[in-house]
Amino acid sequence: MRLSKTFIKTLREAPKDEVAKNGALLTRAGYINKEMAGVYDYLPLGLRVIENIKTIIREELNKIGCEEVLLSSLQNPEPWEKSGRFSDQEVDIWFKTELSSGGELGLAPTHEEPITEMMKKYISSYKDLPLYVYQFQTKFRNELRAKSGILRGREFLMKDLYSFHTSEEDLDAFYAEVEKAYSRIYERLGIGDCTYETFASGGIFAKYSHEYQTILPVGEDKVFYNTDKSIVLNEEVYNDEVLADLGAENEKFESTNAAEVGNIFKLKIKYSEPLGLKFIDENNKPQTVYMGCYGIGVSRVMGVIAEKFADDKGLVWPETVAPFKYYLVGIGDKGTEEAEKFYTGREEEVLFDDRNKRPGEKFADSELMGIPLRIVISDKTMDENAAEITDRKTGKTWRVDLSELFEKF
Amino acid sequence: MRLSKTFIKTLREAPKDEVAKNGALLTRAGYINKEMAGVYDYLPLGLRVIENIKTIIREELNKIGCEEVLLSSLQNPEPWEKSGRFSDQEVDIWFKTELSSGGELGLAPTHEEPITEMMKKYISSYKDLPLYVYQFQTKFRNELRAKSGILRGREFLMKDLYSFHTSEEDLDAFYAEVEKAYSRIYERLGIGDCTYETFASGGIFAKYSHEYQTILPVGEDKVFYNTDKSIVLNEEVYNDEVLADLGAENEKFESTNAAEVGNIFKLKIKYSEPLGLKFIDENNKPQTVYMGCYGIGVSRVMGVIAEKFADDKGLVWPETVAPFKYYLVGIGDKGTEEAEKFYTGREEEVLFDDRNKRPGEKFADSELMGIPLRIVISDKTMDENAAEITDRKTGKTWRVDLSELFEKF
Repeated sequence: MRLSKTFIKTLREAPKDEVAKNGALLTRAGYINKEMAGVYDYLPLGLRVIENIKTIIREELNKIGCEEVLLSSLQNPEPWEKSGRFSDQEVDIWFKTELSSGGELGLAPTHEEPITEMMKKYISSYKDLPLYVYQFQTKFRNELRAKSGILRGREFLMKDLYSFHTSEEDLDAFYAEVEKAYSRIYERLGIGDCTYETFASGGIFAKYSHEYQTILPVGEDKVFYNTDKSIVLNEEVYNDEVLADLGAENEKFESTNAAEVGNIFKLKIKYSEPLGLKFIDENNKPQTVYMGCYGIGVSRVMGVIAEKFADDKGLVWPETVAPFKYYLVGIGDKGTEEAEKFYTGREEEVLFDDRNKRPGEKFADSELMGIPLRIVISDKTMDENAAEITDRKTGKTWRVDLSELFEKF
Repeated sequence: MRLSKTFIKTLREAPKDEVAKNGALLTRAGYINKEMAGVYDYLPLGLRVIENIKTIIREELNKIGCEEVLLSSLQNPEPWEKSGRFSDQEVDIWFKTELSSGGELGLAPTHEEPITEMMKKYISSYKDLPLYVYQFQTKFRNELRAKSGILRGREFLMKDLYSFHTSEEDLDAFYAEVEKAYSRIYERLGIGDCTYETFASGGIFAKYSHEYQTILPVGEDKVFYNTDKSIVLNEEVYNDEVLADLGAENEKFESTNAAEVGNIFKLKIKYSEPLGLKFIDENNKPQTVYMGCYGIGVSRVMGVIAEKFADDKGLVWPETVAPFKYYLVGIGDKGTEEAEKFYTGREEEVLFDDRNKRPGEKFADSELMGIPLRIVISDKTMDENAAEITDRKTGKTWRVDLSELFEKF
């Protein structure tokens, strides 16, 4: 992409109405635009990051046999009334609206009820099970406060997966598969070594659920971890009973702030029972379907990565989610000509700063935008038949021969 | 994709609450699920069609220099109040909702106002122009009636492109580029020869706008066309004055029903003026930005294609939008083994009907689902070292050698 052809402009100053670092930096670097608190637009660079995150999640879910769908945002109250969750007393973050032909609708804050209701058309026999169905979908949550940039949105992008089983054992086995898939996902997203599967409250149908918590000073959650971080607990379940349960009464725990980047939950029959999702078993008897649900906040993950790796110069993207691999700058006539040559055919990988600006400004923008590698081809490097590479993360700079650049980059 | 592993089930009967052919067939064939009138879920096959349509549109827009973004659904009333369009008297299809922290919000039925408002941050000089920005976004429209399947949705997917210019001449030039891009898009979508650029009302800022109308008996619009279909008019502008304008007073016109699959509109300063989107020109003087907007109803296009090409056996997808190129059936032990071999490595192109069903049922489903080519490998065709191919559109069946099948398909 040619920077001269985009509408993106970096801003020197953080926007005044943005207290969160992720929101301020992503705005300054031209990734997002704030519509109102908790509601953001994704600009070309931001949308590329979102799509990269989605691709990683999609690939790992498809590997374990999940099918992608897209459910609606507008919600018929009916299935939600069966579970008791349409009530504003029960769920206090609904956005509600009115059909002009009459009747109240909701904007989906999550999708357990509609997918359970839908599956009544597709599941009838044990032969139809198990099934794993997911989507990337905009969720709406009427948060009273939203001051954390894209870490907590009133409108945000989520991946939600739902699984359907004949038995609790089958649910358990798939749950374990999802745990492995989630590990691979966070690894590939570049936050594998600071993201922990964390015990959290399980509600009334399960003792525990699991959250995935990324260590982050501004994270809204507090987690406790033992010395080797083999046991991590959300503070809501950090008590003597749970520690005894986990055989960790005598271990030492420390606490830190963290951001929840995913959660997985054995719903069992929590929704399938009130909504009447049944199957006929091998003995011709009706049984209630077991369910699990598994979320990843896609836009929140983008915010966590932005916040986590940023330094005083700006964003630092892991290569797997970066909008472009290379930030290309040509200096001088010969250098610029060679940069054009390098750019040709690499439009999808290279953000080419062909703007009429000083090299210093371009370098500052490449750092603010956080593109993993900067490639500078100048008249001076051309004299040595080379280009200069700078690693955004380490700041390390080195030269490569032009032939190597064209072959290996 | 293995049909045995998906939750998709075809239905023999059309759903009782679905009067539109596209809605009934797409539901029966397992592409969509109805949540309520005008609100549908996209199941795995349906989502693949949507993504194919998006890819074609995206490729053609990127070719003419457009940039992709994703704006929010939740709408701050402010920019809409400046244009006068937040009022329910002015725009009667708003879904409105309330922020829990206070204040009314809207759900975007379109995005002229927010993108004009946003561009005030990115456009300041003539050097920033022109710009072409588009998105694929869910729109919400509170239609009183919605009985046309996915042809008219209360929640639907749209591609909307907005262009920004220094002058009317520059807008005109880009408008002509979009006309060419739209021709290529409808051509690639398989409806090029039945989709016409149509004169329609231009509102107060332009004499005409253009719609793209696909001839369709159930289409909600009526268009008039001359003998060689070089002039097509929406009935709203079919009058003596307009015919005189186009030098077509003496031509014969006939009428037909049609479905609007796109529209393009020279907004000029309709929104940029009330919202104050200005640029500094070469003489250092502030000027109002000229704008155009260009829509394609992505989910409606899917419905139009479904409705247009369907026959008494079911859907008939053009190859470019079909969820899979091939519907694969293996019959007998040897045939099934060979089918497995063909499937391996072609998972993205082949819908493999590996279900434990009679061949007749599989053939009927392949026709209902409308996959372009059916490949049958049976013990019988294997004796001749061949596979049987059936073209969904023509019904023609022929044999190919297995070696040719593996090489060319």
